Amino acid sequence: MQLRTLEDDLTGPQNAVVDLLGVLAYGTLIGFDRMAADARLAPDLRRRAVLSVMAADEMRNYELLARRLEEIGADPESAMAPFAYPLEAFHRATAPRSWLEGLVKAYVGDGIADDFYREVAEFLPEEADRRLVRQVLHDTRHADFAVAEVRAAIDGDPMVAGRLALWARRLVGEAFSQAQHVAAEREALTDLIIEGSGDINGIGELFKRLTSAHSSRMKALGLSN
Amino acid sequence: MQLRTLEDDLTGPQNAVVDLLGVLAYGTLIGFDRMAADARLAPDLRRRAVLSVMAADEMRNYELLARRLEEIGADPESAMAPFAYPLEAFHRATAPRSWLEGLVKAYVGDGIADDFYREVAEFLPEEADRRLVRQVLHDTRHADFAVAEVRAAIDGDPMVAGRLALWARRLVGEAFSQAQHVAAEREALTDLIIEGSGDINGIGELFKRLTSAHSSRMKALGLSN
Repeated sequence: MQLRTLEDDLTGPQNAVVDLLGVLAYGTLIGFDRMAADARLAPDLRRRAVLSVMAADEMRNYELLARRLEEIGADPESAMAPFAYPLEAFHRATAPRSWLEGLVKAYVGDGIADDFYREVAEFLPEEADRRLVRQVLHDTRHADFAVAEVRAAIDGDPMVAGRLALWARRLVGEAFSQAQHVAAEREALTDLIIEGSGDINGIGELFKRLTSAHSSRMKALGLSN
Repeated sequence: MQLRTLEDDLTGPQNAVVDLLGVLAYGTLIGFDRMAADARLAPDLRRRAVLSVMAADEMRNYELLARRLEEIGADPESAMAPFAYPLEAFHRATAPRSWLEGLVKAYVGDGIADDFYREVAEFLPEEADRRLVRQVLHDTRHADFAVAEVRAAIDGDPMVAGRLALWARRLVGEAFSQAQHVAAEREALTDLIIEGSGDINGIGELFKRLTSAHSSRMKALGLSN
């Protein structure tokens, strides 16, 4: 049996997998919690139920992620712990004050996160993990609902668009700021992304794709970027 | 085509079905909301995830109930509306202040409600509805978790038992008080229960069964009734 050194425990592809599943797991757990609370901002019971169902879907994904972490010998709680602070900080800084802000957050915020995780998943060594990550990304039916609601609100009052565009910019800013904290702390995960992307140009391309998909979503909502 | 009178719209077995599915649907929606919030009282992430999963399960049930209401030509929102006030009042009066109070509420409160709905379901004319109601009752794995947690807490500090027994009594009192409001308002539902039970003795028997099952749950938790 090969001796595992302390370094093995902090870096290496296996730890990157635990990190990625850990951040996704904590993301679903707090995403559930925040979306469940945001559902109360809904103007009626039908809409409240739609956002509550979205929130509930997060916990189905949580269960899949926690099960996989246990399967590969990792404790879900320990795997999630390093990401609690940055994710809490993101959600604290971006608590929606209205139903529409909540929807833009779900669509724009989850959209960028999904795009990012979808790309990073391809760098994982095991197909089972790649498939799992693709599986826990958000359902497109949620996206369609958010787009329809926001567009209808803007049609009713064009002033809404400017405020929501500002809100979306704040969401993206906070997300990138917290992502940088994570990158600085989680060497294995950062190595996986750098090696997977090939080089600094590869990372540049990755960010270009994220930015371009984000612009498309803003356009779909009827918001200027 | 037979003319439907106003009375037809307020009573009759079809309206009892809409009422029963409506109260169950609103119960899952607010149960989701409250349990999602109570999950934050958990002492660690593992336990928080367990209660969050319980909450998420409510929304799966909500979706089944809303789909069935639409299938029988009822609008889910209108079907739920008459139950919003009494159910909100119940939850407002019984907001847990601790993790253990939250678990006792989930186990004792949902236990009585499930027993009641299981009995009433048998009075419904359609097998599809009877099966649906049985299906949306709470998962027993949740009950096992609550029992294990509460018993462990009492083993660690026997004083806990007295406080939680008082809490359980308050839950039951509030539940019956709100149930009486519903019974007074929803004639079709009340008729269904009276006719299904046979007579006043039948209702007495129904209550005896509910009380006896409640006592067993209190005993399972290690609480005096």
